[in-house]
Amino acid sequence: MTGSHNAVDVIRTKRDGGRLSDDQIDWVIDGYTRGVVADEQMSALAMAILLNGMDGAETARWTRAMVHSGDRLDLGGVTRPTVDKHSTGGVGDKITLPLAPLVAACGAAVPQLSGRGLGHTGGTLDKLESIPGWRAALSPDEIRDQLNSVGAVICAPTDGLAPADKKLYALRDVTGTVESVPLIAGSIMGKKLAEGVDALVLDVKSGSGAFMKSDADARALAEALVGIGAQQGLRTSALLTDMNTPLGRTVGNAIEVAESVEVLQGGGPADVVALTVELAREMLRLVGIDVEGAADPAAVLASGRAYETWARMIRAQGGDPDAPLPTAAHRHEVAAPEGGTVLRMDAYQVGIAAWRLGAGRARKEDSVSAGAGVRLLASLGEQVAPGQPLFELYTDNPDLVPAALAALEGSVEIGVPQADSTSAPQLVKDVIRTTAD
Amino acid sequence: MTGSHNAVDVIRTKRDGGRLSDDQIDWVIDGYTRGVVADEQMSALAMAILLNGMDGAETARWTRAMVHSGDRLDLGGVTRPTVDKHSTGGVGDKITLPLAPLVAACGAAVPQLSGRGLGHTGGTLDKLESIPGWRAALSPDEIRDQLNSVGAVICAPTDGLAPADKKLYALRDVTGTVESVPLIAGSIMGKKLAEGVDALVLDVKSGSGAFMKSDADARALAEALVGIGAQQGLRTSALLTDMNTPLGRTVGNAIEVAESVEVLQGGGPADVVALTVELAREMLRLVGIDVEGAADPAAVLASGRAYETWARMIRAQGGDPDAPLPTAAHRHEVAAPEGGTVLRMDAYQVGIAAWRLGAGRARKEDSVSAGAGVRLLASLGEQVAPGQPLFELYTDNPDLVPAALAALEGSVEIGVPQADSTSAPQLVKDVIRTTAD
Repeated sequence: MTGSHNAVDVIRTKRDGGRLSDDQIDWVIDGYTRGVVADEQMSALAMAILLNGMDGAETARWTRAMVHSGDRLDLGGVTRPTVDKHSTGGVGDKITLPLAPLVAACGAAVPQLSGRGLGHTGGTLDKLESIPGWRAALSPDEIRDQLNSVGAVICAPTDGLAPADKKLYALRDVTGTVESVPLIAGSIMGKKLAEGVDALVLDVKSGSGAFMKSDADARALAEALVGIGAQQGLRTSALLTDMNTPLGRTVGNAIEVAESVEVLQGGGPADVVALTVELAREMLRLVGIDVEGAADPAAVLASGRAYETWARMIRAQGGDPDAPLPTAAHRHEVAAPEGGTVLRMDAYQVGIAAWRLGAGRARKEDSVSAGAGVRLLASLGEQVAPGQPLFELYTDNPDLVPAALAALEGSVEIGVPQADSTSAPQLVKDVIRTTAD
Repeated sequence: MTGSHNAVDVIRTKRDGGRLSDDQIDWVIDGYTRGVVADEQMSALAMAILLNGMDGAETARWTRAMVHSGDRLDLGGVTRPTVDKHSTGGVGDKITLPLAPLVAACGAAVPQLSGRGLGHTGGTLDKLESIPGWRAALSPDEIRDQLNSVGAVICAPTDGLAPADKKLYALRDVTGTVESVPLIAGSIMGKKLAEGVDALVLDVKSGSGAFMKSDADARALAEALVGIGAQQGLRTSALLTDMNTPLGRTVGNAIEVAESVEVLQGGGPADVVALTVELAREMLRLVGIDVEGAADPAAVLASGRAYETWARMIRAQGGDPDAPLPTAAHRHEVAAPEGGTVLRMDAYQVGIAAWRLGAGRARKEDSVSAGAGVRLLASLGEQVAPGQPLFELYTDNPDLVPAALAALEGSVEIGVPQADSTSAPQLVKDVIRTTAD
């Protein structure tokens, strides 16, 4: 597998616009994992890849090498079909919280290995850690046991999964080499393939609050992800979804848990319900569970059975689903400066505001505030009167409010809707599936 | 001078095809020198520069920042005009050895800070160190004293000159980012500007034995170098010269010194004499010394006055110009397989052979053999008989001969010259001067 190569030759191949051979890719990722290929060599290669690209076959091999750099989670002992969801990140994106127990209640097993937030998009583990007693770190045995007993797990990745990806991601962050579709695709799919699931559904977001600002970039990433899945034998499909507007009416940690519970109990904002059901349908479809009968996710959600699975999942990880959630010490309302229809509510600006209030972290080692965040008191397309509250801000530290208010400046557009723009924005724009499906 | 920047923003600017501002360049080079900008960040930036380029003004500022990263040699106390030569490197390129004393004998002061060899091209200091007693390391005071007393110095760079260049050069070597015209130009000119000379002549070589294989690449580099000189107020011109064939009839260390002494004593191979005189004329012209009268370099060379300066220069640095030079323990002849005219004698292959015999080093920490090398017993355009010797190989270790012979395989083409190719190849192809000249 690891032939005789040297890092400079591999770098030069890509620098000069050539294709990396399977052997070169295996060698360079293995060498980087073991420290034989130095950080400065990997960053030069990453920049050459960013500027000169990798084709589908190179990207698939790169991803495979990421998986082979470490252990793979063994889900062989899990009796139900396993399926996972990955979102590229958005503002108010708490979908994993209702989705994992919902899909489990419909008959699949969902091992949802999740991350913490960095920057303006929150992290699933940060949100769940606002539940008293809940713990994110599980052993592989605990994950397997809980998949068999409850059907759903949301936890931190176990040690040793795709270590090359962990190292490379930190390097790309400081060397201006994050924004490369093949490298992003390899990173996401490397982690997900290492989890050993049977199927994967991707939620690829585009818009102001997403990593990908344009639909075209999001589509290119979705196609790369689905292509890698097909090459590596993982049933994969991708939903292209909107992230110009925050999802739901809460952006933060504890307040997003509370909203997720509302959804699991048959209520909650329509957009969160719709996206949860759409993703659940696609996940169940991929593992061959009929969504027209007893496992119709919309019906299961309305029945309260998904909430029961949620409560068992939280308890299995030490949490108390009935305990009151933490709240922030201070709140501050933002009023509409004028009356009219809400034409735009900028996801990125709301995300930054929540982050500045303490809901997110600037550096990996920072902690987050469970109670901080932003509640949206008006939604896109709603009529508001002058002075009517648009946002409620929550924080433990009132000194943070001015910076959050600055972030929100101009985030809401209020006016008269144009005659030709009466239709609501589409939440799910398209679905990318492999041709084999 | 150093505004508020961060490395990722600087990298992104160049990655996305933008221009680096003066302030960004100053900040990133200063930060790299101080270790605030990490190696992996600088290598990503170097790759972005290699792939997306830098314009003339960016390259000039980059060079200036290299100079400002350390000390500058103060030649204020030198009474004669100072001028230096830099060659991009070639096989058998011993020109500095006769050139520095020749130009000094014509009335200028020549502080020739030189390097050691790495790979198939030799280093000037390696060659001179084959002279018993000669030492390469001088202090700034010793350099100034010798320039006033003798007029010529060939020595190692003093500590503290362009430290950012030293660090960046080592980094580029291991990250596949050597072959960038702006980075090469910045490195050469950064070192030369730090020497504080009044004028500089560049010998930019192209051909099989040169770093630049094509005339077009060599011209682009020469224009970049002369452009930086003009922007930074250093009188600079560049000769574009051929490096498809080795220079002279010796490739090694002691044997190149001996050949240089022949040239200084009025003999030696015609190509070495011609290039030495051409470069001397250009150097003297740049510092305003009339080359038509008493300072005609061809006449000074023939008169033996340049040799007197050589002998004083070698003595001033502890060497004995009259001591016998070291010789290698073993010699091996290579005979012509057939008769005819020598149509090609490949500089790169001869360079590799001399290197493998021990004349060069593979890693910085290796030592070189003073006696090893290759003597050319036939020249381009000469008639040879079958079995007539073409090369004599010298080495301290006869085990190295087979590898050298393998390198020479096919290096000499013998045949019948075509009717339309009777003219000898041009040694000096063009001269690049600033428009102000």
